[in-house]
Amino acid sequence: MTMKKPPLFIIKIGGNILDDENKLQTVLEEFAAIPGKKILVHGGGKILDRLATQLNVPQEMINGRRITNEETLNLATMVYAGLLNKKIVAALQSRGANALGLTGADGNSIVAEKRPVAEIDFGFAGDVKQVNTEIISALLEKEIAPVFCSLTHDGKGQLLNTNADTLSSALAIAFSEKYNVSLNFCFEKKGVLQDPGDENSVISEISRGVYQALLEQKIISNGMIPKLDNAFSALAKGVKKISIGDAEKLLKAIPKNENAGTCLIGD
Amino acid sequence: MTMKKPPLFIIKIGGNILDDENKLQTVLEEFAAIPGKKILVHGGGKILDRLATQLNVPQEMINGRRITNEETLNLATMVYAGLLNKKIVAALQSRGANALGLTGADGNSIVAEKRPVAEIDFGFAGDVKQVNTEIISALLEKEIAPVFCSLTHDGKGQLLNTNADTLSSALAIAFSEKYNVSLNFCFEKKGVLQDPGDENSVISEISRGVYQALLEQKIISNGMIPKLDNAFSALAKGVKKISIGDAEKLLKAIPKNENAGTCLIGD
Repeated sequence: MTMKKPPLFIIKIGGNILDDENKLQTVLEEFAAIPGKKILVHGGGKILDRLATQLNVPQEMINGRRITNEETLNLATMVYAGLLNKKIVAALQSRGANALGLTGADGNSIVAEKRPVAEIDFGFAGDVKQVNTEIISALLEKEIAPVFCSLTHDGKGQLLNTNADTLSSALAIAFSEKYNVSLNFCFEKKGVLQDPGDENSVISEISRGVYQALLEQKIISNGMIPKLDNAFSALAKGVKKISIGDAEKLLKAIPKNENAGTCLIGD
Repeated sequence: MTMKKPPLFIIKIGGNILDDENKLQTVLEEFAAIPGKKILVHGGGKILDRLATQLNVPQEMINGRRITNEETLNLATMVYAGLLNKKIVAALQSRGANALGLTGADGNSIVAEKRPVAEIDFGFAGDVKQVNTEIISALLEKEIAPVFCSLTHDGKGQLLNTNADTLSSALAIAFSEKYNVSLNFCFEKKGVLQDPGDENSVISEISRGVYQALLEQKIISNGMIPKLDNAFSALAKGVKKISIGDAEKLLKAIPKNENAGTCLIGD
């Protein structure tokens, strides 16, 4: 007899939500309404950029990834783990969701390694090496929603800036042994678009086969490719369901057990 | 038959330690070496002041308490809950102490109320109303050291700046039902001084009776009075032992079960 795994919802929200106070509050309201076990993951690059400008700390991005020198890491720690994480946690508490904010250093929950310097030196950027599920599981069992910001550590005292999409995937994969994990990537579009110029051309389902065909037809935009590669890899590693799309639509669909945005389908 | 309560060490570190990287690392080394259950509490006013200067946010203190307008609260959230809290947690992890950083909003662990406006409007300053011990206890049971920064919340979505000394006392009182709590206030002097001009005139023990006599003789300095009032109140509410003094000496004394600095004695 196999036990049915309980559901776990992992929601990643991005800069477009974090930067819009009204939108953020609506999204947190929807997140609080999700029944059962759930984890929120957030970045905050846009707010970091603003603080960096105020403090005259120049920012450099290569292939959409931030070069994280020591000064920028300090700003990221202030903005992601401090300002945004605690505002989110306090707001969730006021909505009846018992939340607890974390970086990967807290409870040693996500260990990463500093990205090796190849052609580009990304500085204090970390690639996830290991997720320790014990503490997070204990929180979930107590009906607490962990709220992760996109920072990890190397276990040797160094905090590392880690892409929030890959951090979400790493969590989803690690918890798929114990839970039926539904991973939701909220972003500024309604889903993966058939026609990048038409906001309403959302492809409702993409299997790995369809993905290959779309890649060959060059329908998938360059910015979308790492997100989808990352997602299909997570599906192959046991994640049950992955959705990509508009935050409010994705979150509203969860309690109704409906699909929204683009659903990715494993093999 | 009464069960003997297990020990719990609560250590509050102040700005003079947080602002000195070498001293901080030494103190964290000592904290990591404390056997058993322990909680670290920190503020970070000096680092907040520096960021406020860089960002041209004027700071105002009245009777040693900060006036916390919205902008200052945001800076405090960045510095206390972000930069300092996560640096401390990552450093403790590298020293083999599994730590987890918290504000009072996390896990709804410390609820405060905004200080009523009387003669002075302290802004978003919070006075502790309730400590919810369940989540913190669960962490302690898992041999995790909670690291609290001096922020709480009102349960209605508002973070509040809370004095780290009173936050430490509130934790100590709340946990004294279940634990033999030893509360350690680390500060820049070796203890309460008989002669403020002589660093080595530390009074090794002060009972409530002696405290009254010292007050009448005007030996206790004005800055020290709220700290000691606060401490004697915690002793009256069940805290087992309170020590005040130099961080390294206090922390080194704990594993040896010795006294250091000034020990306050309850009735």
